[in-house]
Formats: sequence, C-alpha cells, structure tokens
Amino acid sequence: MTSLTNHQYRLAARPVGLPKPSDWTYTTSETTPPGEGEVLVKTLYLSLDPAMRGWMNEGKSYIEPVGIGDVMRALGVGVVVASADPKLPVGSHVSGMLGVQEYSTQPGRRLQQVDPRLAPLPVYLSVLGMPGMTGYFGLLEVGQPQPGETVVVSGAAGAVGLVVGQVAKLKGCKVVGIAGGADKCRYVVDELGFDSCVDYKAGSVKAQLREQCPQGIDVYFDNVGGDILDDCLTQLALHGRIIICGAISQYNNTTPVKGPANYLSLLVNRGRMQGIVVSDYMKQYGEAVRAMGGWLREGKMRSKEDIVSGIETFPDTLLKLFRGENLGKLVLKVADE
Amino acid sequence: MTSLTNHQYRLAARPVGLPKPSDWTYTTSETTPPGEGEVLVKTLYLSLDPAMRGWMNEGKSYIEPVGIGDVMRALGVGVVVASADPKLPVGSHVSGMLGVQEYSTQPGRRLQQVDPRLAPLPVYLSVLGMPGMTGYFGLLEVGQPQPGETVVVSGAAGAVGLVVGQVAKLKGCKVVGIAGGADKCRYVVDELGFDSCVDYKAGSVKAQLREQCPQGIDVYFDNVGGDILDDCLTQLALHGRIIICGAISQYNNTTPVKGPANYLSLLVNRGRMQGIVVSDYMKQYGEAVRAMGGWLREGKMRSKEDIVSGIETFPDTLLKLFRGENLGKLVLKVADE
Repeated sequence: MTSLTNHQYRLAARPVGLPKPSDWTYTTSETTPPGEGEVLVKTLYLSLDPAMRGWMNEGKSYIEPVGIGDVMRALGVGVVVASADPKLPVGSHVSGMLGVQEYSTQPGRRLQQVDPRLAPLPVYLSVLGMPGMTGYFGLLEVGQPQPGETVVVSGAAGAVGLVVGQVAKLKGCKVVGIAGGADKCRYVVDELGFDSCVDYKAGSVKAQLREQCPQGIDVYFDNVGGDILDDCLTQLALHGRIIICGAISQYNNTTPVKGPANYLSLLVNRGRMQGIVVSDYMKQYGEAVRAMGGWLREGKMRSKEDIVSGIETFPDTLLKLFRGENLGKLVLKVADE
Repeated sequence: MTSLTNHQYRLAARPVGLPKPSDWTYTTSETTPPGEGEVLVKTLYLSLDPAMRGWMNEGKSYIEPVGIGDVMRALGVGVVVASADPKLPVGSHVSGMLGVQEYSTQPGRRLQQVDPRLAPLPVYLSVLGMPGMTGYFGLLEVGQPQPGETVVVSGAAGAVGLVVGQVAKLKGCKVVGIAGGADKCRYVVDELGFDSCVDYKAGSVKAQLREQCPQGIDVYFDNVGGDILDDCLTQLALHGRIIICGAISQYNNTTPVKGPANYLSLLVNRGRMQGIVVSDYMKQYGEAVRAMGGWLREGKMRSKEDIVSGIETFPDTLLKLFRGENLGKLVLKVADE
C-alpha cells in the first residue's frame, strides 16, 4: 500500500478565552504504513466535546494537556484501511483516540471494535460512547438516584444530559432538564420524555426550579457550573447529591472560575458534591453498553447526533458547543467509507 | 421554693456583619417553678459556638433561627436546683439548651445528665459535647480517613479542630493543622501531637500546604471556608474528601459568601465535598462519648477549654470566636455551684 495524504488540525497556541482560528494550524503529511500490531485507520466521524477545551490548557488535570504542535486529541470512529494486527483486519470498524485528522496509524490494542449493524457509527460516539458512559456512571454510581426522587440535569439537550435524563426516567425518577431555548426544552420533554425543562434563556432559573421541583432537588447532574450550579444548590433537598461532570460556562473564562457561592447548602442539607471522570469506570463499560444498547433496540431510549460535515470546519464547528448551538451529540463527519 | 431573679441576653436585632452591643438586650425576670416533669436549672457554663452566628440570621437553615426578643439559644451545663422530674433530683448535673441566661425551667427529658466525677463540667461542652461529636462523626463517618492518609483541619486549635486532629492521629493518619499564629500552631503540634501546622498569618497557605502535604490532602475538614478552602482544593489528592462543617470566615460577611473557585478540583481528582450536621448522629453519641471518654482517661486525648467568666461579658466574649482569639473550646462561666 502506498502512503496517503493526511490532513490534521494541530494546536498552535494555548487559547485565551474561546479558541480562535490562529490557535490552530492545518497541516498536511503522508500516512505511515502500520508496523507489527498496528493498523492504519481512516477517520469517518470525530466526537467534539466540551472537555476538549480543557485539554488545550496547560497544567494539571485528569489527563495530559495537548502539546503545542501536536495533533488535537479527539475521539472518533473509523475504518481500518491497512492492517498489521490480525485482530483488526481491513474493513474493521473501530473507535478510539483518532485525533483531528483524516488518517492515523496506531496500535490495534488501543482501539475498540464496533459493529455498524448494531447501531449507526455516530451512536458509538454518543449514547454508546464516552458521553453515554459519562452520563450512565455519573448518574448511577455517583448520584445513586432512587425511584421517585427528583433528578435535574443541565445541558439537558447535550450528549451527556440526554443520557442522564433518559436513564433517570428509566430508573423511575422525576426528571427536570435545564437547557437554553424553547426548541431544546421542547425536544427533551416531547422526544425524550423528560417531565419538564427549565429554559435558562427565559427568566429566572431559580424561580423555574422552585416551581418545577417543589420537593427540592435530590440529584443534580452538573454539566455547566456557574450561576446554574448556584441556583441548584439553593434548591437542594435534604441529603441531595450533586455530580460535577463539567462546567462549560466557565471553560472559556478569562477571569477566575466562579465558585458556587451557595455551597453551604451542602452543610444545611447534609448534601454531597462529587466529581466524575468517566475513565474510572472503564472496566464496567460493557455493562453500560449492554444496558443502553438494549434500551436503544427496545425503543426505550434515543440517541441524538448533530452532525456537521468537513474536517475543514473543525475550528468553527467546535465553537457550536460553547455557543450552545448543538442539539444532541456534536459530531464532525470527516469522510464517507 | 420562692422564685429567683434571672438575667438573660435576648436577640434585639438581626446583626449585619459582626454582632454589635445594640443587637442584644439584657433583661431581668423571675424564674418560674417547675411544673410536672420539669426542672429548674442553674446555668454554670455556656458553650459559645460559631454556629450561634448562623442562628441569629433569618431564613432557612438546619435549625430555626432565634426569634427577635427571644433568649439567645446556647448549649450549657448546669445543676438542678428545683425538680418535678423524679429522674433528675436536685443536685443533678445536666447539659442541654439552657440559653444565655442564669436559670431555665424546662422539661427534664430535654436534658442529658452528666457526671462531674468522670470529667470536669466544661469538658461536657467540649470533647464530650457538641464540638466533640461534630469532630468525631464528621471525620470518621463523612471523611472516612484511612491509616497513612493525610488529614488537614482548619480551625485546628478550636473546639472541633482539636478533636478532629487528635482522632485522626489515633486512627493512624498524618495530621496537618491550619491555625492563626505561632502560639496556636505550637499548641496543636507540641501539646496535641499534630504532625505539623500551617500558620495562615505567616505567608501563603497554599505554599505551606504544598510543603507539608507532599502527597496531597486526602481528607480536609473545613471549619473556615473562604480562601483556605480554595487552597485545600488546590492540594486535594485523588479521591480526596472535604468535610464542610462550617465557614467561620464567611459568617459575618456583609457581601455574598465566597464560593470555592477551585471546586473543579473535585472533578479532576474525583473528589467529594460533603456537609455534616452533628444532630444527624444523635443516636450514636453514646459510642463517641465512650470512645473519647476512654481516650481522655488514658491520656491519649486532651480537651482544652478557654473559659471567660461573667454572663455580662457575653456579647464581647462571643466575638473572640470571630477574631480567632480563643485557644480551645470557648466557654462562658456563668456561676459557681
């Protein structure tokens, strides 16, 4: 096999605030043939996630930052086009850290095989992928919701939020979403079966929560941080639990992060606030994929992807996340098979 | 028995910031003789606690606020001087909510009998009282420290802090206190056996914590909130736990409470921040009193009270807490037996 032309987005500078075009360089290279145990993967779909903004910062986090000049880290699904790993013959579909590029050569053992006959490929970046695992384990393992309890989730129409809400409903909870705009709110109630939804663009979140959660909030799954976290703390029920999954409202701050001023509600209500990093549950992913795959097949759960085409749109498409423009999991389509 | 003259401090106004003299009225009344099941208690010692500041505010908390015109709520120990409760004959020593007054008539069932032969009476307001129970259950039940882990406690020379640190040492932990001034730091290290102590008045808390907790903080018991909570979040170890017991730095704020800007450390480190209210553990108090009473008798633990005499000093003595002037449990001596 001759080598192929490959294009990449590389991190050119650490962004201040929202990533701007000059924080990226678009480069061209040739693919390298797979060595023993390696495969050459053609990227089909890339997962665009709020967490990517954190990976662009310097400093300690749960994962190493992307280096300046490195290909931007991204999860993706693709197809094997050359193989020196007998477990992944040409034509195998895989998911893994493909990076923002058209092709990658990497050890087969770092990739998971996926089956396009069981679910469309983008779903492996959504409900059956990292956001799905995050919502499933964050809600069930950290939040431990009980039937009849009130579960609130922000970023409700996003990749993680839509999983959290649907799993909570399946577990017998009352589910209130928080999302921006009437369309997203209508979507999570009418299409996903949430009990109600707070539109943070339509008046006081605190007042809407008070009305929609008269018994208080037993579990709050936080994807956004900022004022909404504070509003949920105010409405926390006795022994309430808050899952800290993300803080998209704060990722592009050029001023210090806004800490939750109402955190003493944890004292008054004997509440708990706890972080989740999905990779801690890697050994249990099979359990979640079986459960959610079953619910998808039975029509008890829906996946939702917001697919934008063209690797060249990457810098701008990523910003949709921070503008709150995506409905469902934001996916970048890089190529047809 | 004829009635006795009784003096009280009543809440005159809800304080803005630090309570000032005009927030109190000092009143005189006559005692009422005990009705059936009641006793008349002569107050000997009163417990002055940071939590009292919260009880003076309007609004929802874990306990009703003190009403304007009501006798200020306070724990205390006293002696029964008239009794219509056969379980508590005259001469019995009791602890309970006596209020900031010289005498109180109340149902015997609301009081706990204490034995001055087992421990000096002020100790029943300290290690064997509410602060002791708070430190014991907050640390062990919420913090769940393991031998070899690093436990940090702020307000280390205060009533709760000194219990937390000593119990953590007895459980095999490395213990680092945080206190204000060289005297307090020396006290908790030399007298109480803490491994070291951060003096928050002597330079950067963050830098001192980094030096004294090179493995990070596994358990942080927070009595103070504010910047120190943020500094501890920065140094949190993987799976670290933060016990929110109080926030004395914030109680007299006239501006909004400072939320912990570094709370996303809970995400990065999969940490947990959880509130404690001691009354939730009331059914287990016996267990803690037996354990700590045993340690006191065996010389493995010390109690420490900072005793100020005279009920008329109450408004000013209370402020010692917020000025950080007390070493050990702040107690107001109201009368000799």
